[in-house]
Amino acid sequence: MTHTMPIITLTTDFGSGSPYVAAMKGAIWSLATDANVVDLTHAISPQDLRQAAIALVDAAFCFPPQTIHVVVVDPGVGTERRIVYAAIGTQRFIAPDNGLLSLAAQRCPLTAAHVLAAPQYWRADVSATFHGRDIMAPAAAHLALGITPAQLGPPAEELVQFDWPEPVVAPGRITGSIWNVDSFGNLITNISRELLADLPTSGATITCSSAEIRGIAGTYGNAPRGTLVAIIGSGNRLELAIVNGSAAAALGVDMGAEVVIRW
Amino acid sequence: MTHTMPIITLTTDFGSGSPYVAAMKGAIWSLATDANVVDLTHAISPQDLRQAAIALVDAAFCFPPQTIHVVVVDPGVGTERRIVYAAIGTQRFIAPDNGLLSLAAQRCPLTAAHVLAAPQYWRADVSATFHGRDIMAPAAAHLALGITPAQLGPPAEELVQFDWPEPVVAPGRITGSIWNVDSFGNLITNISRELLADLPTSGATITCSSAEIRGIAGTYGNAPRGTLVAIIGSGNRLELAIVNGSAAAALGVDMGAEVVIRW
Amino acid sequence: MTHTMPIITLTTDFGSGSPYVAAMKGAIWSLATDANVVDLTHAISPQDLRQAAIALVDAAFCFPPQTIHVVVVDPGVGTERRIVYAAIGTQRFIAPDNGLLSLAAQRCPLTAAHVLAAPQYWRADVSATFHGRDIMAPAAAHLALGITPAQLGPPAEELVQFDWPEPVVAPGRITGSIWNVDSFGNLITNISRELLADLPTSGATITCSSAEIRGIAGTYGNAPRGTLVAIIGSGNRLELAIVNGSAAAALGVDMGAEVVIRW
Repeated sequence: MTHTMPIITLTTDFGSGSPYVAAMKGAIWSLATDANVVDLTHAISPQDLRQAAIALVDAAFCFPPQTIHVVVVDPGVGTERRIVYAAIGTQRFIAPDNGLLSLAAQRCPLTAAHVLAAPQYWRADVSATFHGRDIMAPAAAHLALGITPAQLGPPAEELVQFDWPEPVVAPGRITGSIWNVDSFGNLITNISRELLADLPTSGATITCSSAEIRGIAGTYGNAPRGTLVAIIGSGNRLELAIVNGSAAAALGVDMGAEVVIRW
Repeated sequence: MTHTMPIITLTTDFGSGSPYVAAMKGAIWSLATDANVVDLTHAISPQDLRQAAIALVDAAFCFPPQTIHVVVVDPGVGTERRIVYAAIGTQRFIAPDNGLLSLAAQRCPLTAAHVLAAPQYWRADVSATFHGRDIMAPAAAHLALGITPAQLGPPAEELVQFDWPEPVVAPGRITGSIWNVDSFGNLITNISRELLADLPTSGATITCSSAEIRGIAGTYGNAPRGTLVAIIGSGNRLELAIVNGSAAAALGVDMGAEVVIRW
Repeated sequence: MTHTMPIITLTTDFGSGSPYVAAMKGAIWSLATDANVVDLTHAISPQDLRQAAIALVDAAFCFPPQTIHVVVVDPGVGTERRIVYAAIGTQRFIAPDNGLLSLAAQRCPLTAAHVLAAPQYWRADVSATFHGRDIMAPAAAHLALGITPAQLGPPAEELVQFDWPEPVVAPGRITGSIWNVDSFGNLITNISRELLADLPTSGATITCSSAEIRGIAGTYGNAPRGTLVAIIGSGNRLELAIVNGSAAAALGVDMGAEVVIRW
């Protein structure tokens, strides 16, 4: 069997198990029978654009080149907000232009962007409330079938950017923040491995809320169960984690909390 | 790659992430290796036949013709209730004959129905409690492989019908009800777009519980965040929605609540 | 279309809808574009090895021969714990060697086992925290593409075994326990159909907590709604179930509770 067709992933705030997700898949397969359609996540909190942007950047770049990621977190559905196609790094995206792609575009170069404006690639009858099914899914199917991005519509000059908080570096200190909490309760910071590359990490002290950690560990597992550790996680960012437990619960902190490294 | 095989969807009340779902997929692939098997939803509340019937009608008709929808909400498993095959509109279904298909059969014509009665298309060892895995999944796989519906068993004369509440139309007034609440808290009524076609909608007043809405909006998005709007949703039915919020929470209402339109 | 490639299933404790699952799928498809990758379950409680072992044994053996089951419940990630390949019955598994496979290996013969030790089949850059994505997913993809298990690494002498509680048989009595609770609240015991084969089941009395049941029923459905029944479930084990209700809630019991059959 030869798949010539790219994978299509779906990211939404519809909730795991929503029949709306199945409706989008049906719309894709109605056009592109053989597409490999896969859930990236549907567990985004309703209308949480930042959470979706983070989930997307963590998973999308693990996919084969030319994968098409359809992202439907769309509080402005039915307003004048644009829907865009964007080529970012090796991956392709279709999403409302509402900041969803701004983190991906920070990580990898944006090489092309188009505004979806060609209704011949949409469902004949576009509803007021479900552009995921009626515009984005069919456009992704047509892309997978081989139309060029330029057929979707004219170039998009600029995409909406969010202001993502950057860590502040000072002599002997980096001040960052928690930008994501995963399903294990691991606290994932905005402090990247690169930023820590030249740091004397074993001698560093990491503080967050009332907790203080000495040194950045090599793995979760060398420390005893229940230990709070600072570690470089799978997304190449500093994480605070409890070995076999939930750091979010133990520290009582959530997204946005300050994290300071001193050395 | 050419898919000659129809898609098979699964709808159950097993819960998202239940290994019972994987068991059904394994049973299908053990017979039809190349079937494209997809989750419609597994988030139906245990034994909630009406919720399943609604999810099914909203998503099934988005799929390509000849898709086979297997529906396992089966409070009568192991009793004398029949399992049936039904061709409804462009879609095909396998389900217990317990009303699950009654809404789909209201929407599109039922063109064929058969009672599953040919054990050569079932698992060799049928359990007392899991006919989804042991009868329905294998029957769907055999259909996908090309047997005719008539091979599954004799014609089914009539299918079990639910009494679905219909809106009542009177001069200057339509009285309907909430028949579904989606994951965003949108309140979806049984009042269809068709029923509203001749209505002076901009001058109408919609009431539900203590809320009163003036006019039916074109989209969610034109109104400010937090506004309660009445809108025609993606299933072509009147919905009550809070822009970027949950109408179900705000109004404190659930399925069955009365909705009145006056003009 | 011809699938020559085996199915790959994923079982994790990441939570339904975790983007970490999508990252694993992306890692597989980056190597094996045409693999059929399917969720077995991601609803395992964090680090609950026994729950994962039970879900695995219930669903894995429903899959076609040579299916590859990747299991990532990995509290020891980053420590010296081994990752292993195991051929058990008709199925193949890749998992940390932490007891996850011990129940499958009780049910079917373990015919081959290898320690994953050949980094050429892993991601170039292995993180400290996500060996599911960086080691197990790529190894599964390479297996699906046709390498032999021996290429993954040297034979594993023995796998970690859990002590699974066995029912105690005495004259006129079997004493077992609840070993799983499914999403319906059915209480699934460790007492197998085989163990009951020679028993006068209609005359038996089953007790659990304060409940007493007379006889083992043929199906759920013959008894009126709300009745507590003892039945042989789809996994060929004795289950306590409430017809159209939750036995776990009604009896207030959980895993480990004692179940006694007397006759």
